Amino acid sequence: MKFLKYLLIFIPISIVAEFMKINPILIFIFSSLSIIPLAGFMGEATEEISIYSGPRIGGFLNATFGNATELIISFFALKQGLFDVVKASIAGSVIGNILLVLGASMFFGGIKYKIQKFNKSIVEVSSSMLLFAVIGLSIPAIFTHTVNKDLLTGRYEWLSVWISLAMFIIYLLGLYFSFYTHKDLYGSEHAEETEAKWGVSKSIIILVLATLAIALESEYLVSSVEPMTESLGLSEIFVGIIIIPIIGNAAEHSTAVLMALKNKMDVAVEIAVGSSLQIILFVAPLLVFISLLFKPMSIVFSEFELVALIVSVLIVNRVASDGESNWLEGIQLIAVYIIIAISFFI
Amino acid sequence: MKFLKYLLIFIPISIVAEFMKINPILIFIFSSLSIIPLAGFMGEATEEISIYSGPRIGGFLNATFGNATELIISFFALKQGLFDVVKASIAGSVIGNILLVLGASMFFGGIKYKIQKFNKSIVEVSSSMLLFAVIGLSIPAIFTHTVNKDLLTGRYEWLSVWISLAMFIIYLLGLYFSFYTHKDLYGSEHAEETEAKWGVSKSIIILVLATLAIALESEYLVSSVEPMTESLGLSEIFVGIIIIPIIGNAAEHSTAVLMALKNKMDVAVEIAVGSSLQIILFVAPLLVFISLLFKPMSIVFSEFELVALIVSVLIVNRVASDGESNWLEGIQLIAVYIIIAISFFI
Amino acid sequence: MKFLKYLLIFIPISIVAEFMKINPILIFIFSSLSIIPLAGFMGEATEEISIYSGPRIGGFLNATFGNATELIISFFALKQGLFDVVKASIAGSVIGNILLVLGASMFFGGIKYKIQKFNKSIVEVSSSMLLFAVIGLSIPAIFTHTVNKDLLTGRYEWLSVWISLAMFIIYLLGLYFSFYTHKDLYGSEHAEETEAKWGVSKSIIILVLATLAIALESEYLVSSVEPMTESLGLSEIFVGIIIIPIIGNAAEHSTAVLMALKNKMDVAVEIAVGSSLQIILFVAPLLVFISLLFKPMSIVFSEFELVALIVSVLIVNRVASDGESNWLEGIQLIAVYIIIAISFFI
Repeated sequence: MKFLKYLLIFIPISIVAEFMKINPILIFIFSSLSIIPLAGFMGEATEEISIYSGPRIGGFLNATFGNATELIISFFALKQGLFDVVKASIAGSVIGNILLVLGASMFFGGIKYKIQKFNKSIVEVSSSMLLFAVIGLSIPAIFTHTVNKDLLTGRYEWLSVWISLAMFIIYLLGLYFSFYTHKDLYGSEHAEETEAKWGVSKSIIILVLATLAIALESEYLVSSVEPMTESLGLSEIFVGIIIIPIIGNAAEHSTAVLMALKNKMDVAVEIAVGSSLQIILFVAPLLVFISLLFKPMSIVFSEFELVALIVSVLIVNRVASDGESNWLEGIQLIAVYIIIAISFFI
Repeated sequence: MKFLKYLLIFIPISIVAEFMKINPILIFIFSSLSIIPLAGFMGEATEEISIYSGPRIGGFLNATFGNATELIISFFALKQGLFDVVKASIAGSVIGNILLVLGASMFFGGIKYKIQKFNKSIVEVSSSMLLFAVIGLSIPAIFTHTVNKDLLTGRYEWLSVWISLAMFIIYLLGLYFSFYTHKDLYGSEHAEETEAKWGVSKSIIILVLATLAIALESEYLVSSVEPMTESLGLSEIFVGIIIIPIIGNAAEHSTAVLMALKNKMDVAVEIAVGSSLQIILFVAPLLVFISLLFKPMSIVFSEFELVALIVSVLIVNRVASDGESNWLEGIQLIAVYIIIAISFFI
Repeated sequence: MKFLKYLLIFIPISIVAEFMKINPILIFIFSSLSIIPLAGFMGEATEEISIYSGPRIGGFLNATFGNATELIISFFALKQGLFDVVKASIAGSVIGNILLVLGASMFFGGIKYKIQKFNKSIVEVSSSMLLFAVIGLSIPAIFTHTVNKDLLTGRYEWLSVWISLAMFIIYLLGLYFSFYTHKDLYGSEHAEETEAKWGVSKSIIILVLATLAIALESEYLVSSVEPMTESLGLSEIFVGIIIIPIIGNAAEHSTAVLMALKNKMDVAVEIAVGSSLQIILFVAPLLVFISLLFKPMSIVFSEFELVALIVSVLIVNRVASDGESNWLEGIQLIAVYIIIAISFFI
């Protein structure tokens, strides 16, 4: 994690680059590299604040700000009307968390420890919630893909708003479940990991500064997507589904792998699955609501994205039902991710 | 359950209404309301007869008459050639049993008891049977949806008859399994629930009268579907998949929720899953056979219905593999049901 | 198993028949009947050699030659450009192993023993590997079926080669997993089954002779497929997906059922699942590589085949999560197989 902070040098570099209107590919790379350490700082600051605020508010803060980076990037993409990029990055975050992060955790952890066990009951709650969330997301998509499109104009958006509302309510109920009615199911495994480093007031300042810097860099990043994809011949979907999620989640990814190497697979699995849940049930609905301010975005995913989502969720449910992991499982998850990435690339 | 009997007043009301040829929407509502208590009486009478006839014949009676209401309604819909309504109501009964009934049971039960456990091994037999049944049903549908329709005329119906026959044989073998070769797997949980109330001869009279009254009301109901959907602008599929199953299963629904409130989740789950199994393996094939007398109905479902069926079965398999339930799981099931209903509505 | 050797008489019969250019249907039947005992001899010889070579090389030999018959038949089909037959026979072998072989084992074993238990942890490794393999195979297929075909010409084949490479690497890693890093998971259940019969040098001679004879008969078989399907009005897909896999796997099928009758369900399940894994991860990629010598074959399956594959894998995962089997489960598997066969036939 430590060496990531040197990437902060790309903040001034990207600002200068944007000012000089140089090649959009370079702007995309510079702003991406600067977002990675900023997302890390934001995560650490949130966790530190949550130590002082007590477990309940702290859990809520973590659950809300955990995917703030994706939210900010998506916000600017939304403002520019890049709906396909926004939806691809939602799907890509879920796929990346489950296949790449979980796969890498299981692989590296599995090389060090022969078999890694984790608490089935917590993972089962999350993974079954993920199953419901993806099913909820798939149903309207399957309906709209098979029905004549002309019949649906106008109704489309309302369906999206209603489903987003349902997702959001389920999200709030899920928080209520894990922080009130069934909080004893969950240990205090997250809390142990962090020690106070900055103190509360400094943490808040870091949080605010990191958020502002991410917002700036996200604007650069998003505005360079279109010219970059054009000049490289890449599809915007590929950028959305593979590249943006890797940037937004880099800090979390490294944490999950570190936890796996410490044989704390519970935490690694929770990061991957919990973060996916947050994206589907909190970030996606929020983006639909925000889009109403500009131009309504539907929550209907493309068939590609749906298949990838369903596959990821089936896998995580398979994994959860088992309660054990080994390096071979890890490599299989990574292989599926690579196959998906190659397919989208082509 | 008690207040349901006051709904019997809608029998004379619906007869008068039909006679006066009033608005079909009112006829639909009146006949629906009168079927709900009649289905309840038929269920109670069947259960009481089964006390006297011993567990083996009793179990068979329950398994056969359990969905008699759906069978009668579907019979009249079949006679009128409303194939889409019939198939939608088959799919809708399965979805309703699994998502709505099971969801409501888990939700209300889960509010009262923190975690409810149920016997995994029985539910696993039923849920894996359900998986096979839905797979059996999906395969020909997927084949026929992807193959050029012109090539299939004529062969369609034969495929349906063969598959129905296979389903029916599996149903009989399933009864043989649970009442002969592996009957020790199943406790006597159903038997305990009923106490004698009417005596055997009165029960038979009630059964016959309820069946006749349901037949009459079903004819009213079905004949009002077409004019009603036209005047309201609803699709017949929506009526078939959402409204008719709720009417036909209302009595069972309340029983399942009552059992969950008594912390007898085994019984609640068995009602929901067992009833779904009966509909796919017994009611659906029987309707295909009966349709040969009028005009052959294929067993091929629409893509919408299939997706909804597969989703329901995946969920029940997920639930069964766990052996536990809580209120959050219940609310998720209900949410998926509502999303499906909204999608069909639109 | 013993009576199978009398089928060797069909080797000379098929040679004479080919020479006299008689009806292709008879040539198809004669060469099929002669391959069945030859495949059996090849399997026995391989197993006997593996006793002398020690468990590690022995396991590798078994894993590599286990599906040699399918590989040889497919090689000649590939040379003739019958890509649809090759792909159908790959899918058909997997389906046949899981639904028919496993189903028959569970059914016959379940009639003799009420409930048969098997070691969950081994089956879980194989079945989760199978899940990943089929997902890996499905993703590019689903992508190519939904994307405009014109955009893909040329890229198609490269995608197939990359995916085949990924499959093949996973296969090798799987062998490394089961023979090195996690070999203690696996008992020595296979080793016990065989006793030395021929001695090592005689075994090698039998292996070479059987391979040569299978090669000859496969050439007859494959060259009779086209004229036969034309004169009978059968589709080549049906021959590939149902008939060829039954011929190629007959010897293994009978072994699996025999093991189930001895209450060794572990071995029966391992034969069915392990053989399926080998076909997807070893035989299929190898055939794609070989096809580059003639005319590149894509690894993209038809929608029919994919659905059948996915269904089979879902079922085996369901079965594995349970760790028990009974006759009803067996009959359900067989019923799904029959429904698939009827659908392909029509």
